[in-house]
Amino acid sequence: MSILVVGSVAFDSVETPHGKVAQCLGGAATYFALAASYFTPVRVIAVVGEDFTPQHEKVLTDRGVDTTGLEHAPGLSFHWRGSYLGNLNEAQTLGTDLNVFADFEPKIPAEYQDTEFLFLANIDPVLQARVRSQMPAVKMVCGDTMNYWIADHAANLAKVLPELDVLLINDGEAKMLAGESNLVRAAEKVLAMGPRTLVIKHGEYGATAFFSDRSFAGTTHLTVPFRAPALPLDEVVDPTGAGDSFAGGFYGYIASQPALTPEVFRKAMFYGGVMGSFTVERFGTERLQGLSRQQIDARFQLLRQISHLD
Amino acid sequence: MSILVVGSVAFDSVETPHGKVAQCLGGAATYFALAASYFTPVRVIAVVGEDFTPQHEKVLTDRGVDTTGLEHAPGLSFHWRGSYLGNLNEAQTLGTDLNVFADFEPKIPAEYQDTEFLFLANIDPVLQARVRSQMPAVKMVCGDTMNYWIADHAANLAKVLPELDVLLINDGEAKMLAGESNLVRAAEKVLAMGPRTLVIKHGEYGATAFFSDRSFAGTTHLTVPFRAPALPLDEVVDPTGAGDSFAGGFYGYIASQPALTPEVFRKAMFYGGVMGSFTVERFGTERLQGLSRQQIDARFQLLRQISHLD
Repeated sequence: MSILVVGSVAFDSVETPHGKVAQCLGGAATYFALAASYFTPVRVIAVVGEDFTPQHEKVLTDRGVDTTGLEHAPGLSFHWRGSYLGNLNEAQTLGTDLNVFADFEPKIPAEYQDTEFLFLANIDPVLQARVRSQMPAVKMVCGDTMNYWIADHAANLAKVLPELDVLLINDGEAKMLAGESNLVRAAEKVLAMGPRTLVIKHGEYGATAFFSDRSFAGTTHLTVPFRAPALPLDEVVDPTGAGDSFAGGFYGYIASQPALTPEVFRKAMFYGGVMGSFTVERFGTERLQGLSRQQIDARFQLLRQISHLD
Repeated sequence: MSILVVGSVAFDSVETPHGKVAQCLGGAATYFALAASYFTPVRVIAVVGEDFTPQHEKVLTDRGVDTTGLEHAPGLSFHWRGSYLGNLNEAQTLGTDLNVFADFEPKIPAEYQDTEFLFLANIDPVLQARVRSQMPAVKMVCGDTMNYWIADHAANLAKVLPELDVLLINDGEAKMLAGESNLVRAAEKVLAMGPRTLVIKHGEYGATAFFSDRSFAGTTHLTVPFRAPALPLDEVVDPTGAGDSFAGGFYGYIASQPALTPEVFRKAMFYGGVMGSFTVERFGTERLQGLSRQQIDARFQLLRQISHLD
């Protein structure tokens, strides 16, 4: 079934120990959409400026992504500049030019109204809540956020969290949101804020899902978390978009399945790790543009092999 | 089969967010021996001072540890003072009083000469090499080291590494030893220094084993690493000894098996995580003193459950 992603389609200028790229296609919604497109049809809602050319849009449409909801506005696209020179695990933001994104007001095309799976990428929680309320028929809602919204927009974020079936954030964000340095206790506090399930991403160490008794309808309550490994990589060219690609693989797989069972959830965690591992092998979205499902499933098997006893 | 561990039996004074303890029994050989004792007979070589009482020795002998090689010397035992107040993942050393350990000269009792499994805990690599050379008949040798020896005793350490079947160190030590910030490339460089297999411990994120084509005799070369999870814990009372307990569970399980196969190795990684997770639940060695094999195997199954797809 189709996933609708609302978030940023942007340009990134990034410097890593492997080199630098200027103005390459990026943004959370772009990484998410490309990663999810290998599993299920994807629809996107975002705003871009006049610097976003038909060639850029073709990257999305070549992967079958429905860009009906991609609004073209006068001005320049959102532009992020970052550096990983000091630390490959955490970007240093050198500049954020919101440009057309500053006045982003998501509009949901009529053709998107039947969407069953909604992904609220990392944008203003006020917009996340608004989109959610305009999609009363969705079956499942997942979302992301970041330290900026956690620190300065806590009240707005608190209204979105109970709407989420799955919140996907990283260690630092989970601890910050909970005000708690122990990961398990942080997870419990975040789950108490409303999301039915919490996925905490640990970068090169994989990800952990924490479940509540609301995680799965009609199945036994999972009392233990689930840990999915990341693939040990001997070369990380550009970490940008790894988290969004994880979310795309994770949610894309779930949307492709007939029902969300604990088994489907576990496999989705592995597919998340698979898509994240591909993304960081090249600058920008390059690696996500030309994969095959066969390559993806081979890497899924590799992740199983490196983590399973038999 | 018996494991012989050479290392420190010491007293620790530790401060963590959960409280503080003074002069409690510790030392790498102590944690290792107690953890391994649940799997196989353990023999210990260490030196202690006059402050080490029969009550202290009883902690080891109650677990069946053979203390024939525990030398009692005039003076005080090795005493380490550390704090985890700032960071539960890394101890801040407040003081190290070597005391009787300063002149430690390991002597191997005649009764130990038939030992097949040798563990060289974190001590001066010159002593590690000397012990190794006095045990020509051992079947397997594992070892540990730390930043101090890596930084200032590199030439001596380089002589020990080729003697090791498995080197167990943490992320920071592996990267420091290799002079390389990428974990996979660091592992390749460390394996090129001689150990047949490298286990890198990631603390709360588990551990990864990296294999060389010399890792397993007579079996297919393992080309992929193996990642074992750590148990997410909602309370870490005292992280001291977690790494040594990991090594004890890991090596104890291997020594209890008829042969070192890839399957045994993988299970050993899980048992390492199991024993580390118990240790940190209480101050010092308290938790390791009264476990049952049933509790250990239940936690092994839990680790499998949180990491396996089915």
